[in-house]
Amino acid sequence: MWHPADVANSPSGDSVTDRIVRVLETFTPTRTVQTASEVGRRAGLPSSTAHRVVSDLVSAGLLDRDGEGRLSVGLRLWELATRSSHALRVRQAAMPAMERVQARVREHTQLAILEQDEALFLERLSDPDAGANITRIAGRLPLHATSSGLVLLAFADSDVQERVLARPLRRLTSATPTDPATVRRKLAEVRSLGHAIAPGYIEEVSTGVAVPVRDRISGATAALSVVLPREAPTALALEELHRAAREVEAALAGDS
Amino acid sequence: MWHPADVANSPSGDSVTDRIVRVLETFTPTRTVQTASEVGRRAGLPSSTAHRVVSDLVSAGLLDRDGEGRLSVGLRLWELATRSSHALRVRQAAMPAMERVQARVREHTQLAILEQDEALFLERLSDPDAGANITRIAGRLPLHATSSGLVLLAFADSDVQERVLARPLRRLTSATPTDPATVRRKLAEVRSLGHAIAPGYIEEVSTGVAVPVRDRISGATAALSVVLPREAPTALALEELHRAAREVEAALAGDS
Repeated sequence: MWHPADVANSPSGDSVTDRIVRVLETFTPTRTVQTASEVGRRAGLPSSTAHRVVSDLVSAGLLDRDGEGRLSVGLRLWELATRSSHALRVRQAAMPAMERVQARVREHTQLAILEQDEALFLERLSDPDAGANITRIAGRLPLHATSSGLVLLAFADSDVQERVLARPLRRLTSATPTDPATVRRKLAEVRSLGHAIAPGYIEEVSTGVAVPVRDRISGATAALSVVLPREAPTALALEELHRAAREVEAALAGDS
Repeated sequence: MWHPADVANSPSGDSVTDRIVRVLETFTPTRTVQTASEVGRRAGLPSSTAHRVVSDLVSAGLLDRDGEGRLSVGLRLWELATRSSHALRVRQAAMPAMERVQARVREHTQLAILEQDEALFLERLSDPDAGANITRIAGRLPLHATSSGLVLLAFADSDVQERVLARPLRRLTSATPTDPATVRRKLAEVRSLGHAIAPGYIEEVSTGVAVPVRDRISGATAALSVVLPREAPTALALEELHRAAREVEAALAGDS
């Protein structure tokens, strides 16, 4: 069967949608403003194609162009992506409990889910006086090197676990576990204790503590975490996180 | 000059990007899961075109398809739209101050910006025991019927004000101002007092109070607001909002 949109596909077989995604992927937390030429080069698109895709995205409001021709991701895209998203549902269900954790622990309180073999952070609340924290909202971190990631991996399907452990496990600090057998033992510990503690795994100066939040409807697991200074006691954060996880699970179950 | 992507445009002149936007627009806070046929019908696209666009969006991870063929907005889209967005920058700058307001007032604390002649809400923090509140994150509300909207309109360009006041002003409750002259007086009052109070304008049972947050870099104004029960005193919320606005303005100025 012939589809009208087929003709939009290039000889290499990528669709217009793929090209739009490649354009959007060139915008990152540290590169929020670019020219059309920079976008084209970074997206690996011919200049005329890049300018055309960019121009369509600007017309549709998905990219903004300022008076000097510089591009940024448009609010319209954020609105469309957010208002009906699964991320927002989980985040809304979690927020009251996260705010309670944050009010009591006063460091960083975070929510992450498993996405393409990484921990994707949906939310982060931070005290103005809290310590270092590498996490960004809508940012990703490796599973083996974060307390959230270890929780997500411990409760993931075994094929995800095997795939992640079969790849090189990057060392980010002197404390990052990079031996698959060590990570495997850690995952078993997470399942038996019901939480993960990751002292200095991703940044020397901080310790992450995380607990699983099971969504009975989707079957997925999220990770609720707190980031503390490296040598801070973890007992209060763990107690608050375990209580919060029960609250979020109840909210998710009543929410569908 | 000929562009390879031109051939993707339909006889009616809409681009593939437009069709993607039309597909994404069919997903709303109250309609988060749809079949491809429902999407096509609501987007006004021929069935084969709709199925092809949906299929490309699923391949690119911008839509998710579950085991029964039901579609939802994908996390990948949320991630791309959020990680480098202006919404996130403003929201990050505002969060510490919003959390302080929320800790002291314990109702709803919100952040909105002007978008296409409506108030678009970037963030909402809510106490679990707080009263009614119609606001949703990434949701929009009319400018004349909300405290946030009145603040945004009061500090908007005069052509935005004239355009909004020239249109019918919808009555949402018995208290909604629907006479342009009344709204004009209200806007002058907002500019002179530096805040807006909207008792029962959008919901009979609640009062919104809002203050402007000026971003010296972009020149734009955001609105920081609290939603209270209708008859609650507003003094504490106003005091906290005014202080928070100064903090957010400082954060935005130091942040670029």
